[in-house]
Amino acid sequence: MTGARRLDGNGIDVEKQKSPVSSLSSWNVQKATNVFHQEHTVSRDTRRELLGSKFRGCTVWFTGLSGAGKTTISFALEAYLISRGIAAYGLDGDNIRTGLNKNLGFSPEDREENIRRVAEVGKLFADSGSVALCAFVSPYKKDRDLARSLHQDSGLTFIEVYVDTPLEECENRDTKGLYKKARAGEIRGFTGIDQPYEAPDSPEIVCKTVENTVEECMMQIVNYLEEFQIIPRNPAKVEDLMVPEELRSQYKAEAETLLSVEITKLDLQWLQVLGEGWAAPLKGFMREKEFLQCQHFNTLQNDELTNQSVPIVLPISTDDKKRLEGVKSICLRYNNQPCAIMRNPEFYEHRKEERCGRQFGTTNQNHPYIKKIFKAGDWLAGGDIQVLDRIQWQDGLDQYRLTPKELKDRFAEIGADAVFAFQLRNPIHNGHALLMQDCRQQLEARGFKKPVLLLHPLGGWTKDDDVPLPVRMEQHQAVLQDRILDPDLTVLAIFPSPMMYAGPTEVQWHAKARLQAGANFYIVGRDPAGMPHPDPPKRDLYEGTHGAKVLTMAPGLKGLEIIPFRVAAYDTKAKAMAFFDPTRKEDFDFISGTRMRGLAREGVQPPDGFMAPAAWKVLQDYYNSLTEA
Amino acid sequence: MTGARRLDGNGIDVEKQKSPVSSLSSWNVQKATNVFHQEHTVSRDTRRELLGSKFRGCTVWFTGLSGAGKTTISFALEAYLISRGIAAYGLDGDNIRTGLNKNLGFSPEDREENIRRVAEVGKLFADSGSVALCAFVSPYKKDRDLARSLHQDSGLTFIEVYVDTPLEECENRDTKGLYKKARAGEIRGFTGIDQPYEAPDSPEIVCKTVENTVEECMMQIVNYLEEFQIIPRNPAKVEDLMVPEELRSQYKAEAETLLSVEITKLDLQWLQVLGEGWAAPLKGFMREKEFLQCQHFNTLQNDELTNQSVPIVLPISTDDKKRLEGVKSICLRYNNQPCAIMRNPEFYEHRKEERCGRQFGTTNQNHPYIKKIFKAGDWLAGGDIQVLDRIQWQDGLDQYRLTPKELKDRFAEIGADAVFAFQLRNPIHNGHALLMQDCRQQLEARGFKKPVLLLHPLGGWTKDDDVPLPVRMEQHQAVLQDRILDPDLTVLAIFPSPMMYAGPTEVQWHAKARLQAGANFYIVGRDPAGMPHPDPPKRDLYEGTHGAKVLTMAPGLKGLEIIPFRVAAYDTKAKAMAFFDPTRKEDFDFISGTRMRGLAREGVQPPDGFMAPAAWKVLQDYYNSLTEA
Repeated sequence: MTGARRLDGNGIDVEKQKSPVSSLSSWNVQKATNVFHQEHTVSRDTRRELLGSKFRGCTVWFTGLSGAGKTTISFALEAYLISRGIAAYGLDGDNIRTGLNKNLGFSPEDREENIRRVAEVGKLFADSGSVALCAFVSPYKKDRDLARSLHQDSGLTFIEVYVDTPLEECENRDTKGLYKKARAGEIRGFTGIDQPYEAPDSPEIVCKTVENTVEECMMQIVNYLEEFQIIPRNPAKVEDLMVPEELRSQYKAEAETLLSVEITKLDLQWLQVLGEGWAAPLKGFMREKEFLQCQHFNTLQNDELTNQSVPIVLPISTDDKKRLEGVKSICLRYNNQPCAIMRNPEFYEHRKEERCGRQFGTTNQNHPYIKKIFKAGDWLAGGDIQVLDRIQWQDGLDQYRLTPKELKDRFAEIGADAVFAFQLRNPIHNGHALLMQDCRQQLEARGFKKPVLLLHPLGGWTKDDDVPLPVRMEQHQAVLQDRILDPDLTVLAIFPSPMMYAGPTEVQWHAKARLQAGANFYIVGRDPAGMPHPDPPKRDLYEGTHGAKVLTMAPGLKGLEIIPFRVAAYDTKAKAMAFFDPTRKEDFDFISGTRMRGLAREGVQPPDGFMAPAAWKVLQDYYNSLTEA
Repeated sequence: MTGARRLDGNGIDVEKQKSPVSSLSSWNVQKATNVFHQEHTVSRDTRRELLGSKFRGCTVWFTGLSGAGKTTISFALEAYLISRGIAAYGLDGDNIRTGLNKNLGFSPEDREENIRRVAEVGKLFADSGSVALCAFVSPYKKDRDLARSLHQDSGLTFIEVYVDTPLEECENRDTKGLYKKARAGEIRGFTGIDQPYEAPDSPEIVCKTVENTVEECMMQIVNYLEEFQIIPRNPAKVEDLMVPEELRSQYKAEAETLLSVEITKLDLQWLQVLGEGWAAPLKGFMREKEFLQCQHFNTLQNDELTNQSVPIVLPISTDDKKRLEGVKSICLRYNNQPCAIMRNPEFYEHRKEERCGRQFGTTNQNHPYIKKIFKAGDWLAGGDIQVLDRIQWQDGLDQYRLTPKELKDRFAEIGADAVFAFQLRNPIHNGHALLMQDCRQQLEARGFKKPVLLLHPLGGWTKDDDVPLPVRMEQHQAVLQDRILDPDLTVLAIFPSPMMYAGPTEVQWHAKARLQAGANFYIVGRDPAGMPHPDPPKRDLYEGTHGAKVLTMAPGLKGLEIIPFRVAAYDTKAKAMAFFDPTRKEDFDFISGTRMRGLAREGVQPPDGFMAPAAWKVLQDYYNSLTEA
């Protein structure tokens, strides 16, 4: 019995099988023998593993003239790394010269000792698994080389960042007034004035602060850290799965040589979602491992944990599975047109009942999306995706279908310092508007200068009795024209995802996707992604408050703050939509979607202040057209 | 519209609503203005929040004679903290005297400067959110007081640990041979020999290393850190919910004054599970927040994240809910006997369909546990529990019902340096034994000297056609008597939980509970916690490999290594149970539970080597008794 191979039988992920126990369980031995001697050191690898950090410690050393921007960039980087859950700590004059090195002056020897000590402390932080950020003028090459060799001799990464700002610019900035004093002879031995600065010969990174912003300089370093796998790639970074322009004809030609599978319109909508990067870091339709993580934990466990509550899968028939098994690449076709290549496909059972139970909390086949699942193929094809062309629908609305990247660019253009997102699949009434207006006020009260609203109607498949996308878009535009929402501070765009009506599970997806598009805040109201239970008695499928509760507890949404709201209703006293006040509930009239549609269909005006009149007319016209048809 | 209150409407947990965004989104402003000036520092609170750490940085300062055990305890503490995901870093002579302080000697001034620098570095680590562990003789009170004031002036916690080992003992240990040299006059100025050691007047902690083990000393410090909320309480620490002996009569008297609810035998089994600490850190039957975390993420999100995949809930009727609403404490009675008090109860809807969908991946009411759920009350009562008496079943097996704490003590007595757990609810055949034997060999090959098996049959409710617990226990004892498993290295005990037949969801519960009892390794085979689908066609309810796959990916099981195994079957060539070899599948005979029961019932002998003969006889006798009845 040589069992070593058996431990990873069944295709089990053995990576995850950590052995922290080896160190802990030796306690028992120690306890039994009670020998006092030095026994433990924690290896760097063990440390990383146990602290749940997939990053390595290292030292980033910023050198450059006084006023070059070293500390500014290093503090920015510190804040950025910490916002991603990566331990980082900045060492600079402020915390070193007043503490550890307060017994040192500015003589050449003291400068040398200053740098030596900082390098030693940086090394300790790096060894502990932190990213040490040392920002010091450090004008002499030999001192910096010593710092480097101290690290490299211990197997620790040392990254020299030359903050290359011309003396003239530094002197112009002169934030601390030191250049002025040095020129006036009040300070002696000032680098750049009466002491030399030896620029690095081959620094790992050069930051040019005249041409680039702080953020751009910082991202140079972040990209370096990612590239050399010192920190994991940012899962929130939008990485789309589109074939680059220059490779398109080549990939299209390849696609024509591959075995194909025909996908449905619903599949194509999911392909668009994947292709544009809404579901990053997913690289394609889920493989079994990702599917299981999603179903059981509502997350994806890559380098960093990200929220992914709904399966994004490609169902195929048993015949297709048999036909395609063993091939390396598959062409996905819609209406017989090649639209993507799937690489290294993997096939696994589409366990529909179990999937629906876990995703929807019901397996009821009268639920409109569950019905579609049960009609779909019995197998799931998972694999990396390369989308051949931008997916468009030629319905006159494609200009509203902005990708996450395009949205981020738009927010930057506007100069947004906060983005709050509102998901919707219904016409906007003044109750919705109230939430959005209130959210803006909250953000302004917190000091944001220019919070921008992402008004983001869902554009994929919806159930038959929902209002169709073109009508909704017209209605939303009417609301903006009426300035119920400020059109200058609102970006109206279409979210390409299909609707699943999966309540608390789906609301996480709606939030996560908007995080990809640069949203920092997400509004959640009552019963998001809910609908009536398909079977009698009449009731909601999900408990009204669960969506917001689950969303505020959901893992893997770092960087997105959830703003839950109470339900709004028509206040008959104030003749306006208002937040429901349970102390005078008799004054409130709950106008459900069903009732709203009923009124519009029958040509009845809703109460004053329920909806912008022009927007109401859009709805009424739509329902009239249905009656005529 | 003053919206502040609205943000936490609906009882949403606002704690979670972090605001990392405020720092990130200001990037956009900065980008727009491109001003280069120092803008960011990360506050200690923000740092803690974003690094997901609920702990604060601090410095633990070990002082004591050379050889007292300072570094040993500090390294042990470092390993322990890191194993709990808490950043910690040890500073001692090894990494300081050879680095930062290599330009210092042992003169009084240099000793002072040595300690000052270490204190400054400790302070930087503490400020960064780490636990700095400084282990230095530091013989002078004034130096240590300087270190303390450096921290306290910056609002950082400083904890002085006096490692109080008598000089005689240190000299006896003389691990580095330094005392010998000092006595011989080869070293001058050696603390305790020819230089004084000034013991602290009022250290936060005194460790006595003669009377106590390393682990005990370390736990003194851990307890201090927990008590002063510098680190969170260890969720893995077994905290039972039993009323202490001295308070029992008082609580029992109180129980008689309270409104009561009668609970079922199944509820009582869950109460035992909770009361003994198997589901720690759960403090009682789940409240709605815990229930939602469990259903959606299979975890509990307290200070630390722990795995909790199955709901542990108390269903009650609508009548009981109406009767009990608003009371502060409830007495839980079984057969009219008070068995526990529930504090601050909370009532929420028992959404049975949704619960079952998410827990079982099916809502099929022919599933035996789901059937029980649908028959149970329409409300769930959540609240903290105090169990009045140890729960026993008077079936002659109570001595096998060891609590997690009792099991941990047992493993320590045996001197186990690794504990591997095997969950079972069926008779043991030689295929099971093979997994356990193989696991032991794996652990021995990895260097463990005394791996102990926790053979842990489930003792709560099982479905009607499973073999009853008393028969299984007799069968297991026969296997041990036959030495198929080594009785000296096996602890046979009963796990009091009911069985839910919930496949990949339940296997996490089975593993997590054993982690509470001190297991470091958990064996998982094919289709754990599975059963046939209740409806035709004939098939397993869960995919056979999903249990092991999901378990290896499950969050919140830190410290437990999962050991997945391939299925074992009867090898007709070798005439023994063996791991299935797909290259000669014709040689293997899969003897299912159903077939095994059939053979036993019909009095047919199984093939040689399938099961220990004495153990087989136990089964056969049981099935004979059924036929007779």
